[in-house]
Amino acid sequence: MSILVVGSVAFDNITSPSGTVKDVLGGSGTYFAMAASFFTDVRVIAVVGEDFTAEHEAAFTRRGINTRGIERAKGKTFRWGGHYAENLNEAKTDFTELNVFEKFQPRIPEEYMDSEFLFLGNIHPNLQAAVRLELEKVRLTGGDTMNFWINSARKELHDTLRLVNVLLINDTEAKSIAGDSSLPRAARKVLALGPQALVIKHGEYGATIFFREGAFGIGSHPFRAPALPIEAVKDPTGAGDSFAGGFMGYIASQGQLNREVLKRALFYGGVMGSFAVECFGTERMQTLTRSEIDARFQVFRELTHLE
Amino acid sequence: MSILVVGSVAFDNITSPSGTVKDVLGGSGTYFAMAASFFTDVRVIAVVGEDFTAEHEAAFTRRGINTRGIERAKGKTFRWGGHYAENLNEAKTDFTELNVFEKFQPRIPEEYMDSEFLFLGNIHPNLQAAVRLELEKVRLTGGDTMNFWINSARKELHDTLRLVNVLLINDTEAKSIAGDSSLPRAARKVLALGPQALVIKHGEYGATIFFREGAFGIGSHPFRAPALPIEAVKDPTGAGDSFAGGFMGYIASQGQLNREVLKRALFYGGVMGSFAVECFGTERMQTLTRSEIDARFQVFRELTHLE
Repeated sequence: MSILVVGSVAFDNITSPSGTVKDVLGGSGTYFAMAASFFTDVRVIAVVGEDFTAEHEAAFTRRGINTRGIERAKGKTFRWGGHYAENLNEAKTDFTELNVFEKFQPRIPEEYMDSEFLFLGNIHPNLQAAVRLELEKVRLTGGDTMNFWINSARKELHDTLRLVNVLLINDTEAKSIAGDSSLPRAARKVLALGPQALVIKHGEYGATIFFREGAFGIGSHPFRAPALPIEAVKDPTGAGDSFAGGFMGYIASQGQLNREVLKRALFYGGVMGSFAVECFGTERMQTLTRSEIDARFQVFRELTHLE
Repeated sequence: MSILVVGSVAFDNITSPSGTVKDVLGGSGTYFAMAASFFTDVRVIAVVGEDFTAEHEAAFTRRGINTRGIERAKGKTFRWGGHYAENLNEAKTDFTELNVFEKFQPRIPEEYMDSEFLFLGNIHPNLQAAVRLELEKVRLTGGDTMNFWINSARKELHDTLRLVNVLLINDTEAKSIAGDSSLPRAARKVLALGPQALVIKHGEYGATIFFREGAFGIGSHPFRAPALPIEAVKDPTGAGDSFAGGFMGYIASQGQLNREVLKRALFYGGVMGSFAVECFGTERMQTLTRSEIDARFQVFRELTHLE
């Protein structure tokens, strides 16, 4: 099944202990689309400026991604600059230039209207809701958000959460939405706002999926996928979006929606996040193969597997 | 096989969002011994003061723990007071009264000399080394330490690490010993100091065991055990020592020393840590049964198990 993602396409300047790159293709929609493209057909809704070239577009189309929904606007593409210190856990933003992204109004091409899987990348909750409500065939909606919206558009975010089946956020965001510093309590409170499942990404410690009682199967037990301890992290930018792309892409590639599929998807999310950080920008996604993905899936499995 | 632990026995005052307790039995040796006692015979070397009553001793002997090595000294038992804020992740120390613990010189009873498994609880590295060197039949030595010794007795700690087969510490301690803010790099550097295996405890995110190339089996792949997301944490005091007790106790109960045993031990460590935090002090250990432990082991297994 095809998956449709709405999110940002950006040019990034990134500095980490491994070096510096300028004007590399990035953005939440880009990372998500590339990671998901290893599992299923991907459609993208985003906006770019006049500095977005045929070469940039080819990075998508080489991965078989449908770029019909990438709108060209007058002006420059969204730009972000940031750097990471030794421990690589947190990006410090050097600059954010929204440019054409500031007035982004997602427009859904006719050929995308039959999408059954949808991922609402990190944009204003009202835009997320508008996209979801226009699509009538959607079976599963995944969503992301960030502290900026949690703090500045809380009511709008709560409204959007009622339209999201699986929310993917990190520890800080979950605690912030819930107003609770205990992670399992925060998870319960976020689920009460609407989603049937909540994926909390713990960075180098992996991720946990929490279910509403009875959603996608029996019971309310959570499930955890580990992350591989990696020495060779070059650039953590896009790790969370690549996780989401692997997670949602795998789900869309399966016929059924049940807990076993969601559990395996959590492992594939971790796998795609672990590849994304090995190179700057989307470089690793350009060379990656499905057999490398399956081999690492086995490594992740063995990482917690008792005989 | 019997396991011998050297560590502290203390009386604790603890405040958490769940309440306040005073003068409850605690200390690293106590938590370790109680957790390990569900798996194997346990012997304790520690020092207590005149305020340590027959009732306190009965808490050990009811669990079948050999208390011959708990020395009575003139004065008061070690006392610690601390409190936890909402998120329960970090204890703030209110007071530390070393009392009889200040001049602690571990003395090994004759009947303990045949111990084949040893755990060096968190005391001065020189005392840890002295205990290890006196015991000639030891097959496996586990050890703990803390930032206080890492900073104030680094050379002595390095000497002791050459005598330790499995070191159990947390993320911060590993990074501090290695002087490296990357966890996998820090793990490699700590292993180069002596231990064949390194267990890094991640609190609510579980634990990872790193192996030196070829130690306890083939390869150098790490292994991870998850932690159960628990809402009902009353008192995190002793979670790490209970983890170590479950880990080492399970190993001592097995005939062989191989990776599969160490992996299962990592899960049992997590299980014992998860019970310890459910009540104040050692209260949960007093009511716990082996069948509850085995049931939770299955829950931990399912937490990351793909069909």
